[in-house]
Amino acid sequence: MGLLKEINKPQDIKKYSMEQLNEIAKEIRQLILETVSVTGGHLAPSLGVVELTLALHYVYNSPQDKIVWDVGHQSYVHKILTGRREEFSTLRQYGGISGFPKREESAHDVFATGHSSTSISAALGFAQARDKLGLDYEVVAVIGDGAMTGGMAFEALNHAGHLGADLLVILNDNEMSIDQNVGAMSSYLSRLRADPMYTKRKEDIEYILKKVPAIGSTVVKAVERVKDSLKYLLVPGILFEELGFTYLGPIDGHNIPEISMVLRKAKKLKGPVLLHVITQKGRGYEPAVCNPAVFHGVAPFQLKTGCIIKNPGPSSYTSVFSEALTELAEKDQRIIAITAAMPEGTGLNSFAKKYPQRFYDVGIAEQHAVTMASAMALEGLRPVVAIYSTFLQRAYDQILHDVCLQKAPVLFAIDRGGLVGEDGPTHHGVFDYSYLRHIPGMAVLAPKDEEELRHMIYTALQYDGPVAVRYPRGAGIGVDISEDFRLLPWGKGEVLAKGDNLAILAVGSMVYPALTVKKILEYKGIRCTVVNGRFIKPLDQELIVELAQTHPCLVTMEENVIAGGFGSGVLELLTNSGINGVKVLNIGVPDQFVTHGKVDILKEAIGLTPEKIAEQIVSHFALPEQKVKPQKVPLTFAYKQG
Amino acid sequence: MGLLKEINKPQDIKKYSMEQLNEIAKEIRQLILETVSVTGGHLAPSLGVVELTLALHYVYNSPQDKIVWDVGHQSYVHKILTGRREEFSTLRQYGGISGFPKREESAHDVFATGHSSTSISAALGFAQARDKLGLDYEVVAVIGDGAMTGGMAFEALNHAGHLGADLLVILNDNEMSIDQNVGAMSSYLSRLRADPMYTKRKEDIEYILKKVPAIGSTVVKAVERVKDSLKYLLVPGILFEELGFTYLGPIDGHNIPEISMVLRKAKKLKGPVLLHVITQKGRGYEPAVCNPAVFHGVAPFQLKTGCIIKNPGPSSYTSVFSEALTELAEKDQRIIAITAAMPEGTGLNSFAKKYPQRFYDVGIAEQHAVTMASAMALEGLRPVVAIYSTFLQRAYDQILHDVCLQKAPVLFAIDRGGLVGEDGPTHHGVFDYSYLRHIPGMAVLAPKDEEELRHMIYTALQYDGPVAVRYPRGAGIGVDISEDFRLLPWGKGEVLAKGDNLAILAVGSMVYPALTVKKILEYKGIRCTVVNGRFIKPLDQELIVELAQTHPCLVTMEENVIAGGFGSGVLELLTNSGINGVKVLNIGVPDQFVTHGKVDILKEAIGLTPEKIAEQIVSHFALPEQKVKPQKVPLTFAYKQG
Repeated sequence: MGLLKEINKPQDIKKYSMEQLNEIAKEIRQLILETVSVTGGHLAPSLGVVELTLALHYVYNSPQDKIVWDVGHQSYVHKILTGRREEFSTLRQYGGISGFPKREESAHDVFATGHSSTSISAALGFAQARDKLGLDYEVVAVIGDGAMTGGMAFEALNHAGHLGADLLVILNDNEMSIDQNVGAMSSYLSRLRADPMYTKRKEDIEYILKKVPAIGSTVVKAVERVKDSLKYLLVPGILFEELGFTYLGPIDGHNIPEISMVLRKAKKLKGPVLLHVITQKGRGYEPAVCNPAVFHGVAPFQLKTGCIIKNPGPSSYTSVFSEALTELAEKDQRIIAITAAMPEGTGLNSFAKKYPQRFYDVGIAEQHAVTMASAMALEGLRPVVAIYSTFLQRAYDQILHDVCLQKAPVLFAIDRGGLVGEDGPTHHGVFDYSYLRHIPGMAVLAPKDEEELRHMIYTALQYDGPVAVRYPRGAGIGVDISEDFRLLPWGKGEVLAKGDNLAILAVGSMVYPALTVKKILEYKGIRCTVVNGRFIKPLDQELIVELAQTHPCLVTMEENVIAGGFGSGVLELLTNSGINGVKVLNIGVPDQFVTHGKVDILKEAIGLTPEKIAEQIVSHFALPEQKVKPQKVPLTFAYKQG
Repeated sequence: MGLLKEINKPQDIKKYSMEQLNEIAKEIRQLILETVSVTGGHLAPSLGVVELTLALHYVYNSPQDKIVWDVGHQSYVHKILTGRREEFSTLRQYGGISGFPKREESAHDVFATGHSSTSISAALGFAQARDKLGLDYEVVAVIGDGAMTGGMAFEALNHAGHLGADLLVILNDNEMSIDQNVGAMSSYLSRLRADPMYTKRKEDIEYILKKVPAIGSTVVKAVERVKDSLKYLLVPGILFEELGFTYLGPIDGHNIPEISMVLRKAKKLKGPVLLHVITQKGRGYEPAVCNPAVFHGVAPFQLKTGCIIKNPGPSSYTSVFSEALTELAEKDQRIIAITAAMPEGTGLNSFAKKYPQRFYDVGIAEQHAVTMASAMALEGLRPVVAIYSTFLQRAYDQILHDVCLQKAPVLFAIDRGGLVGEDGPTHHGVFDYSYLRHIPGMAVLAPKDEEELRHMIYTALQYDGPVAVRYPRGAGIGVDISEDFRLLPWGKGEVLAKGDNLAILAVGSMVYPALTVKKILEYKGIRCTVVNGRFIKPLDQELIVELAQTHPCLVTMEENVIAGGFGSGVLELLTNSGINGVKVLNIGVPDQFVTHGKVDILKEAIGLTPEKIAEQIVSHFALPEQKVKPQKVPLTFAYKQG
């Protein structure tokens, strides 16, 4: 850390020479590698934009000038250059700095991101606000070619081109989103990158025009008209030009002098400008360059070898889903798997390898994925749409309108349900029970462990209607996984333990913690019934009414916001069935955004550990405690999450 | 009705000559005009596609071949030609045929639409299912140039181009969505329409190439290379070509022989084809041609004059919102108004006229609208995003992630909350309380009448955070509207009447019906407290707890699904505050999609009339009835809706 340690704000880099900036680039890569190999994080995207970020801060004046990072997983360099170098070691840790831009964290993080394709909209909003308020600053959106496949990026391009707003969109083209990129736009960008003929054609035309004998006004007019239309040959980015942007590029995204020069040129241009920058994901770290999908968002790894440090432990929910689906697809030819740019993260890569013809990666296009799946389902296929809980929020309208209204049997495999940990509030999947449960005709299931997930996938595929199975990020409980598939009784919960003081009705990731709560309460002399709800919708009405009628107190537990969630559904059921005797407590995520950090710490912070839940139960119902045994409770069912 | 009455299925038109088809087109227009002038409906879109629809059914074989109508408001001609001519008079009436394609209604309606920009995704799903299942049929999506501005249309184009799927996208270009179209794409299409030079250039180039003296291999090679790249000059739809589509057009959408010929050509082409068809919205009916925005979705009107038949009555909520905002904007320069292609429907047209520089129509791009608004709000402006409840579903993720997570003070003016009537299940706004209430930091308000709406808009604009005000379609209650603006106490309900047997806590459009319920129950000897909740979130905790503690029974009333809605929030509050004594009943929309028809009939059907609610209350709580007076209840507070 020679030069880098002198840089405490972006202005500090302006005094350095280009050579020194290249030196700083190296130091930044080193710092990122040393940190992320320990903390885990979005390595490859940030390594890819070191020079670009340096050039941006070299030419622009942040925070007066506004730089919006699409998705934001590439913002580590920006964070290091904008006064967070020393805190960088706290990256993604509870109380430390976020892995995404965050307004509360720094004035340089002008817009919080985390989901894809929002940056052009935000930049346009800033540009318009600037013009309305008579202010004077530059606005830059940095968006990957993957994020460009998201529909709202197009909506914003279309609108920005229409308004002719002064803003710069930097298309950071690394031929990847998280996995290998897909889509016609991607092929188009490849052609732009690869085709030296664009320039050649210009020369050809000019050469030919010179050779034409200047006889007669007909020829002259024809030559004039062709010259007029020359831009169709000269401008490689005609697609963007047609949308009202001035296209610049493609340029080398690892050449600081070149980027700086073009940025200066872009600053002088009026209206919307699109600068096409070619970068290499993972640049400067061989393992990441060779395997950018793995090093996109990565767990801690050995810096020297690039080996991911694997926690020995149970299979992940993702891999159990992946195996189950691949097995089932062998017998059921109707099964189709769809991902929105995340074959690796959703575990569909093994399905894709085995059934390439039955697998679709649609790009970062959740809306399209869901509606396409609906049509497939209506024609007799069984599409399985595997999308993280937080990203499926993008397709809420399509789930409601195109799938549920038409009763299309689409299976939503919702990974990363519940708290996801270090990625924080933009990635926690704690709203899905609430945004799905109120849609007519939607079924929502959640398994208590990885073995039940297997059977739920099977069961859901037998169901003739829209259905979601929601499971957590990371490792399972560690239970044995049977080889067969079991049909779970539809709409029925599972009684795991019986007691007469209190009934606990838990779903998904909260079922094992419920068993621990039961143990804790037992030591206080409180006997609990524990039920695995399995179905968030339809609820097991019979069982729930019985629980309410046979217990004085009922607790619901879920890893979802309480508002509108599973427990809320239980309340509606009891209330409107006229069941009044029972006292109820809803345990779940409170009405607030949850920060980043290890899942265990976050659960502690929001009161979702078995101990805290037990305390809350005792205090809410004012239960009389009589200590049965004094020793510490063995938390055999403690919840493990990676 | 000479020829048309012989047509009972689309195959029937195949025997007619082109002249006869033109005759049939006239008859169809007559039938649509006669019907819609009585029923109201989407007149102009359907009048614009008469010839296109005839040509489609002439060339394709529905329902084997699948025609997907984007949005679906232009499907009347299709309905008439596919066996629903005789039922056409029941259009949009309860029990009659829907104003949108609906699978339950006909095998020819292959995909239900209603929201914009879904057709290409659906068509691609059908095309993929066809190929996987080894079937043989054609797939056609018909999408307007307005719908093309929606991001998911681009997502689907991008994916279809990538897959090279055999499908036809017909771009029905009438330079309008609902209102005048906006966006760079729209300008691009205009250039395609207007520029005869595209063809001319081809001739020029060929002419010039011929004139080049054939000396030396350098020239020959240059000529070859230019010929290779000729498509950049020849193909007007380069934007679509770059995305992998074969572009055909533009052609005259009112010339049946021409369309038929090109459709036949398109059928023979492999891979995705985009056919650009120019149509005139409202074609054949002068008032609609002159005023296509008004005749887009129109109330009953006088056929001869085109005068809309206005029900004399109170101001609409829309117009009260519109006036309030325009007034407030005069004093508060920070106010910005944003619509997604509906300046007329949302009432923002008068704002736009007065403050053109502070008004944005972003196209059918709800996602972009919300995120752009967030950035504007973070910079100190006060953006007001006016979108119908059902269409705002598209921006759920952006509301959560870009607005609420960043606490951006965006005001959502949510029109068409509750049942909207004749447009049916794709347009009812009955999910918004549920999809907004569970988002941390979101405030949700609903006025009991148009006067309260005025004060709520004012109050919401004073609030420094994300806030939604939701109001119904159509006419207000008819109360006097004050000239001033009143600041409503934040998070506080309003007690309208006091009684000791039962408390009714109603929000929005259900407050006046609650007063009627109170009257009905009074005649049965049951004395009610009635509270206007005003706030769906934050709830008036103090008042609600007090109501629960001072009444044996509590009823919540809302025009939203019960699941996760206002009543559900009241249950959560009571339960988790440990209030157990009170019995509760939640009144709202049941867990089902509600069909189309007059709002009164729909409310009757789902039990949302005051009479039915009163019955349900009596039966749910098993209240003892003692008739106080035998006469019929005067329903002075009966709810009026247009």
